[in-house]
Amino acid sequence: MSAAATLPTLETQETPALLLDVTRLDRNIARLRAHLSTLGPRLRPHLKTAKCLEVARRVMDGPEGPITVSTLKEAEQFAAGGVRDILYAAGIAPGKLDRVTALRRRGVNLSIVVDSVQAAEAVVRHARETADRLPTLIEIDSDGHRAGIRRTHAALMVEIGRILHEGSAELRGVMTHAGESYHCQGDEAIMAMAEQERAEAVGCADLLRAAGLPAPVVSIGSTPTAQLSQRLEGVTEVRAGVFMFFDLFMAGLGVCTTDDIAVSVLATVTGSNAEKGWLIVDAGWMAMSSDRNTRGQAVDQFFGLVCDIDGTPYPDLVMIKANQEHGVIAARPGSAAVPPDLPIGAKLRILPNHACATSSQHDRYNVVKANTRQIDAVWPRFNFW
Amino acid sequence: MSAAATLPTLETQETPALLLDVTRLDRNIARLRAHLSTLGPRLRPHLKTAKCLEVARRVMDGPEGPITVSTLKEAEQFAAGGVRDILYAAGIAPGKLDRVTALRRRGVNLSIVVDSVQAAEAVVRHARETADRLPTLIEIDSDGHRAGIRRTHAALMVEIGRILHEGSAELRGVMTHAGESYHCQGDEAIMAMAEQERAEAVGCADLLRAAGLPAPVVSIGSTPTAQLSQRLEGVTEVRAGVFMFFDLFMAGLGVCTTDDIAVSVLATVTGSNAEKGWLIVDAGWMAMSSDRNTRGQAVDQFFGLVCDIDGTPYPDLVMIKANQEHGVIAARPGSAAVPPDLPIGAKLRILPNHACATSSQHDRYNVVKANTRQIDAVWPRFNFW
Repeated sequence: MSAAATLPTLETQETPALLLDVTRLDRNIARLRAHLSTLGPRLRPHLKTAKCLEVARRVMDGPEGPITVSTLKEAEQFAAGGVRDILYAAGIAPGKLDRVTALRRRGVNLSIVVDSVQAAEAVVRHARETADRLPTLIEIDSDGHRAGIRRTHAALMVEIGRILHEGSAELRGVMTHAGESYHCQGDEAIMAMAEQERAEAVGCADLLRAAGLPAPVVSIGSTPTAQLSQRLEGVTEVRAGVFMFFDLFMAGLGVCTTDDIAVSVLATVTGSNAEKGWLIVDAGWMAMSSDRNTRGQAVDQFFGLVCDIDGTPYPDLVMIKANQEHGVIAARPGSAAVPPDLPIGAKLRILPNHACATSSQHDRYNVVKANTRQIDAVWPRFNFW
Repeated sequence: MSAAATLPTLETQETPALLLDVTRLDRNIARLRAHLSTLGPRLRPHLKTAKCLEVARRVMDGPEGPITVSTLKEAEQFAAGGVRDILYAAGIAPGKLDRVTALRRRGVNLSIVVDSVQAAEAVVRHARETADRLPTLIEIDSDGHRAGIRRTHAALMVEIGRILHEGSAELRGVMTHAGESYHCQGDEAIMAMAEQERAEAVGCADLLRAAGLPAPVVSIGSTPTAQLSQRLEGVTEVRAGVFMFFDLFMAGLGVCTTDDIAVSVLATVTGSNAEKGWLIVDAGWMAMSSDRNTRGQAVDQFFGLVCDIDGTPYPDLVMIKANQEHGVIAARPGSAAVPPDLPIGAKLRILPNHACATSSQHDRYNVVKANTRQIDAVWPRFNFW
């Protein structure tokens, strides 16, 4: 966006600020693309993590998509940027259908998701009233994680499919998200979950087809299962989002290393407490989010892992406490590590537990390349709904 | 702002959406004002929770303040709205001093905070270079919570005071925040903490005065200690912020009841799972925040306490899981409560664990009065830095 000449360096950038290492971003994207290219399905990247048109342009097949979004705000913003093939992957609330149709009338191939007779009936009613053949996927439950119809509820699935297909909507197929993969222990467990996600989705599509209903799309995905999938027969597309940025939770799961994490928060030292071994920085939970999802992992990263200004982690140095605009930096409990003796005004980078949550606390990415301190660009995010 | 006639009702409002019950807001403000008026000090409300000019106007002494802020963005936005007396209450990073002086040159009585020799020296250097007599408070540590100088480090405190006073800055006094009051058990413990906060701050001001230094301001405050303070001799002003909105954490602490909580998130039912006793709503951690601060309290509220559309809590109904845009609503584990049988499209209100964190996930307040469903106004928030 802005010319690099007018942009600050990491030394002069005001803090707290969200950094995006575009070298790591591009590497993460290339790695998943290479993996999927050996397996067949196309990538429909989930932009809920990035919420940013410039990131979308680096990850999409082409300028028109396809992509996945988590809000209609994202759909509208990406559509304004030229994206034309968008899946809104959260179960539709009937009150949002007018906004869906408004986007579709602007030429966007926007598809939606249902997992109940009631929602399917609302979609068909709206489709009839607006003469908009809303393309709809049935969400299936491949792992007991959240929403969706289980394969064992075949009659319900066919009923929903029939309502859509025989009504005024377009039954486009099935989708699922194996969110339970976030709780798998080890690569083998994730691979088994990936196969379960695939088999359940393909099995549900086959159930619809056996009932004479169309199911051209079989859409699956989560970052762990996408990274470790071994076969994807019958799957037409894979959705994943966190993989672009990665985070400490994914590193704890073994899906990436801390060297792959592309987002971090730049912070400034504002104080210290030698007796307690604390540094105080101007980034608290407002900059990091309150997400403590590594709490249950083998290595608890507290509110984030602390690196020097160039992104090299200090051993065992974490943000142990976070208030709104204050972070307390200290050695991980039990570690003999000693925090670095940094002056007031020194800069640190903090890696996040959860890239989606930390990024959502910011309205822009300050874009850097690996091994440089010059901010090259500022990319806006679309937050809210 | 907008005319009520063009604004939706709670039934037609798109979700997720942050609601602000202005009847409760005004009652909460009146209660703390009445309490403090019997004790003497003026209120310097902390606007870090609200980040909203319309809320500020309801809570300030007058249109020019005084107020407290947690970011320079807040200071700039409130200044643009006419506020003139602002304390930026987080330890200053030297790199932010240019932005401080820019605001002060626009006529804002903006004061800052230091708790080290290094920071004081940076302030004095900046003050000399810019000919801006930066009014500065020394942060003191009244409870071991975070930042500040302990009263036992009297020589250090006097040294910092002398650097400021004999340099080019204005030594304005001391400030402290008894953040540990959030972990007190019961009213008596909070009252004891309030007295400790008062005594430490006044004691530190007296140390400066005994050294011949000025300390006209003695600024203390946290919502629990402000609400339960019994005496405030020697204190000139009280800072508190959460008290305007309150939240489940403060209710768990006994500082308010759930009937006092003025902010909630309006959500729509998008699905259900009868076997699991789950309702799925379109508000997840993006709408609620990931803040789980009630986890350590006697009653764990998970990601929020669920109410009907009018704000009446269902017994033991909580958001037990939160993904980015999905919330799972169920009975609190161990409770025999049964979730209400609500159709897809039904609306719920969810009370937050932490008003600051939940509000920060939104860019506006949808303002309602108690016992009505008409949104009367939309008040913007200033997020980010």
